[in-house]
Parts: sequence; C-alpha cells; structure tokens
Amino acid sequence: MKKHNFSAGPCILPQEVLKKASEAILNFNNDNLSLIEISHRSKPVVDVMNKAQQLVLELLGLENKGYKALFLHGGASLEFLMTPYNLLPIDGKAAYLDTGTWSAKAIKEAKLLGNIEIVASSKDKNYSYIPTDYTVPDDAAYFHCTSNNTIYGTQMKSFPNAKGYRVCDMSSDIFSRQLDFSSFDLIYAGAQKNMGPAGVTLVVIKEEILGKTGRSIPSMLDYKLHIDKESMFNTPPVFALYVSMLTLEWLKNLGGIPAIEKINQTKAAMLYDEIDNNPLFEGVAVKSDRSMMNATFTLTDLTLTDKFDKLCEQAGINGLKGHRSVGGYRASMYNALPLESVEVLVNVMKNLKK
Amino acid sequence: MKKHNFSAGPCILPQEVLKKASEAILNFNNDNLSLIEISHRSKPVVDVMNKAQQLVLELLGLENKGYKALFLHGGASLEFLMTPYNLLPIDGKAAYLDTGTWSAKAIKEAKLLGNIEIVASSKDKNYSYIPTDYTVPDDAAYFHCTSNNTIYGTQMKSFPNAKGYRVCDMSSDIFSRQLDFSSFDLIYAGAQKNMGPAGVTLVVIKEEILGKTGRSIPSMLDYKLHIDKESMFNTPPVFALYVSMLTLEWLKNLGGIPAIEKINQTKAAMLYDEIDNNPLFEGVAVKSDRSMMNATFTLTDLTLTDKFDKLCEQAGINGLKGHRSVGGYRASMYNALPLESVEVLVNVMKNLKK
Repeated sequence: MKKHNFSAGPCILPQEVLKKASEAILNFNNDNLSLIEISHRSKPVVDVMNKAQQLVLELLGLENKGYKALFLHGGASLEFLMTPYNLLPIDGKAAYLDTGTWSAKAIKEAKLLGNIEIVASSKDKNYSYIPTDYTVPDDAAYFHCTSNNTIYGTQMKSFPNAKGYRVCDMSSDIFSRQLDFSSFDLIYAGAQKNMGPAGVTLVVIKEEILGKTGRSIPSMLDYKLHIDKESMFNTPPVFALYVSMLTLEWLKNLGGIPAIEKINQTKAAMLYDEIDNNPLFEGVAVKSDRSMMNATFTLTDLTLTDKFDKLCEQAGINGLKGHRSVGGYRASMYNALPLESVEVLVNVMKNLKK
Repeated sequence: MKKHNFSAGPCILPQEVLKKASEAILNFNNDNLSLIEISHRSKPVVDVMNKAQQLVLELLGLENKGYKALFLHGGASLEFLMTPYNLLPIDGKAAYLDTGTWSAKAIKEAKLLGNIEIVASSKDKNYSYIPTDYTVPDDAAYFHCTSNNTIYGTQMKSFPNAKGYRVCDMSSDIFSRQLDFSSFDLIYAGAQKNMGPAGVTLVVIKEEILGKTGRSIPSMLDYKLHIDKESMFNTPPVFALYVSMLTLEWLKNLGGIPAIEKINQTKAAMLYDEIDNNPLFEGVAVKSDRSMMNATFTLTDLTLTDKFDKLCEQAGINGLKGHRSVGGYRASMYNALPLESVEVLVNVMKNLKK
C-alpha cells in the first residue's frame, strides 16, 4: 500500500532522490564502485561536495555575498555548542529567544561558554506561540533563534532587529519559504527535514564574522578551520551529503524556493482549513504563529481517538502521532510531501465527521 | 569491469551489505517506506541501534563486562576532543603515544584541555615504526594510542601496561584481529574502514570510568549522556548505523573476529611476501611493525611508475596510491577485501618483473 509519510524527521524525501541514492550504493558514477566505498578525496566525491555547497548558496540567494556553506557532522545539536565557541567573545554576551525544546537546548549549551540573556520565552504556554514583545540588547554579540518549532507547530514569520550577528537554527524549515537569508550571519540546519537523511548538518556562515572571540576553538568545532579545509577537515558523511545534494538539485529543478513555497502554502492552507472548520479537531498553536511545516492539532472528542487512528492507518498515513510533550497529532508537511498526501489526510478527517 | 578496491577509507564493504543497503533506501522492513525517511524513534530503527550495539559487544567479547557501545556523530576526530573532556581531570595528566598523523591530531586536541605527556614518538623516522622504549607514567589518568596507522602502514602488536585507563583509537583495524579488548577502557573507531560507511563513529566504553573529571561537559561531548539516552540523544546517522549493523552481522556469520583474522593474515602474508621477494618493490614500514590492514611500499626503480600504474588500472585495481606524506603505494586490505583482489595485485607485481 502506498504510504503518506507525515513523519516529523527523519522525513519524506523525493522518490527520484531515493531512487538515485539506492543506485549509487551499488554503482556510483558508472565506476562499478559504491558511493560509500570510495575515497572522499576522489574527484567524484569532491564534486558532490562542491555541487552541494554551490546549490545551497544559489537556492538561498547568497552567492558572492561572503557566505560559505559547510556540510558537517554532529546534527544541529553540535551547532548549539559551535555557535558560542565561534561567536561569543570570552567576556561577551549573547541573546537567545526561547520558543521550544530546541531553543532551550541551544541555550543550555551556550550557557557553558558565557553570559546568555533570554530575551523572551513562550514556555509559559507550552510554547504554543512566538513571543514578540522584546528587544535584542545592543551589547549582545549575537541573537539566536529557532525559525520553526517542529514539536509545537509554531514558526517565526518575522525576525527582530539585532545590532549583533543574527543566528538562526532553521533545521525544520530551511528551503521551504522565501526569506532574506542575507539578513542572517549564521544559519544552520540538520539535514533530516527538507534537505536529506539524518547524519549531516548544513552550516551557512558569513566568513568575515569569524575569528573574533579570543577563544581557543577545538578543531572539530572551528568553523574557520572547516572553511579552510573546504568542509573536508575529516571524512565527511558522504552518503548523507550525496542525498542532500540530490534533494537540493530536485528543488532547483522544481523552481527553487519560490516554487516550493507556493506548494507548501497550498498544503498548509488545505490542512489548517480542515482543522478550523471540522468541529472534531482544533489546532494547538496560536493561529498567527502556525507553522507551514508542522501542523499540531487534537481531537475535540478524545473517545474518537481509536477510530481516527484506524482510519489513518487504513489510508496509509504514517507518522502523525504528536510529540509526547504536546500530545494529539502532528502533520509534518515538508517539501517532499505531495499535495495528494494532504488531500488523503483531509479526507480522513472529513470521513470521521460523517 | 570488476574492481579491486584497495581504498584506504572509505573503503570496500561486503557486496551483500551493499545490496541490502541499496534495497533499504527504497523499501525498509517491507513497510513501503525508505530507511532514511522514517523516525529514528520508530521500532525498526531502534531495533537496528540495539542490534548494532549488541553485535559490537558480542564480537569484541565484551558482553556483561560493564561496557557500552555507542554510535555517535563526528568521526574519530571528535573523539580526540571527547576523550580528554570525559577522562582527563581538570588538574590531571594524560599520556599519549605518537605513532602518526592521527595520534598527533589526538594530542593536539587533548592539549586544549590539560597536561599531556608524549611518552614516545616515531616522528623522527616519518612514523615508519612503533616506539617501544617507553613507560607510561603512573600519574597519567589515561594512556592513549592508535592501534593502526593507515598512512604509514604500521600497527601495534602489543600494548604497554598503564596504571590509568587504556584508550585506543582503533579506527582502522577494529574487528580485524583478536585482542583482549577488555584490557581497554575506551575504544573508538570511525566506521569507514572495517565497519561501515563514513558518518558514524563507534565508541566502546567501560561505564564505570565516567563522571570523575570535575568538568562541565557539553551535551554532545558527554559519553554519560549518550549512554543514558541509549545513543539517541539526538537523531543518529541512521543510514551509516544500519550499514554498520549489516557489516557486523556479516562478520558474525563469517565466524567473527577469529575467522576474519585468519583471512586477513593470509592476505597480508601473500602481499608482503611479494614485496619482500620481488626486487622491484620494497616495504616502507619496519618489518616487525607492519600493518595487516595497510601495506605501504614503493618501487625500487621509479622509472617503472607509469608502467606499474597502467598495469594496475588494466587489472581493475583501485585506490592504491600512497598518502602524500609517504608517497609510493598503499594497499589497504580491510575485512571485506577478498583474497582474490590481493592475488590480482600480486600477479600485477609479478608481471611487472617479467
């Protein structure tokens, strides 16, 4: 049975990407060798790295603007540590916005390295909204925020002014909507939402902001070193890198971010429309802060839980269970999720009403 | 044409592993979903993690001995930093043996965190031997060494006594030979030699040695936290983990480390025999310290270089070029390299003589 994959991440990837990735495991580049058994210093793999970096800058509109794209190990969780190591001066201060679990984790790691000011938090209402009533202090070396909160289904629609650098964890909505990416100095994202499989992390950084903290930075945590080594200081996660490159290529061929944004808007509108108009469901996040990627919702009548779950299963719907800290349901509608899958889910919701 | 893959890493993996990995990209676990598009918290992926951990301890003979196996991000290069973070007390000292590029890199990172004593180094002769004339100081919290040096083709045949913990980077020879693994307290290894593709790192650690340094350890660098979270503190590199599990399973079915050690001994003996008896070649590493995994050798008559390279290419031999810091040739004979490939190489060497 065809599956409709609403997983929150790792999540759905384009079918054509999966097909090419599967082939590359057996025979890459027509060399009768697998992608995963050749040197990362060989030309075909170096070409993949270069192409992936180039596609990132092109898709984000950051070519020739002093940015570098890196594909690193560790997940976004390691970036929580790398950010202050590279950007927080020893006696400096950084400002963080707390909009959910991932923001809170970023704050925890940064506090190990210095003075962190939490400018606002929506923890008081289980992170169901994005705070707006705050200003970023002028003496903060950087401002850090999370653009989309997978668990709670909220998304920042605008970003505050900041005198220091702007840093954003875009793990769960990068490449999904148009933004002025050049207004950020450091963007990072675990691949496993809109870009590829788990196991590689994208870092996009304005090179000129580095080298100013006075810290001794361990090699693996040093953005400058990774830039100097062209993102191959150590063996990169070749397979995850390759699949990311294929997914970026797929997005470019589709028309890039403007094209996918329209599709994402259509999918989100269709689902939120049903949530708002079907009396059996209600949304979790504040309407104005709703995420285009992750829709969180609950049943108004919990006795229908088994019935709804069964209808979903019969329709081939996968990965709809909400995170334990929110409960209910979460439909993740990342770039590769077809409109058809949202239609199937909406039909199941309508059928439950009948 | 069939390839004979002598790459130093990423390197050859068993064909049946590549086949299963390729299939899992399209349809994993007969669920009509790809391995790389489902949640790492889903039962099939958690099962892969558990099985991989169990196979590691079983193959190394470390079951029920207080060890934990972790599959982490970052490569062995991140372990260079994690080792002192987790094992070096704030005012303590650690002892390191310098046997090559990777030892030197480990030393560099450790020095950021404390007092490091280099007990011996073979840098004086371009790392062509393993030093033995040293003792590990009793006040060292731990002793760190690299069991096999891919670049130089040397391998430790025995390990010194140490009062502190014994730590070993076994990236390039783990699972290739029988050792008393329980004599080590911490073993780590990047996957991309004998275990799987690049992008995951194995850590085997005696749990009782943790939590004694007095340091605040960043989450992603904290072994104790990774143990508590069953190696899923953040999204693991699922694909690399899965391929590692398949490779460990392949090794177990083959008869485990005793069986592969015999095969590896046969392969190495065959190649070194040719190197020693063919006047056109000579080995680089001191004989008693030769690696069973990576044989480094040169042509005695450099004018034959083009001819030898061409014969190799015609025979389908891949990845034989030596590392730039040694020159010449390096034949890596990891677990998955068939005896047949060594025979092909030896025949080419014999043909050059004719």
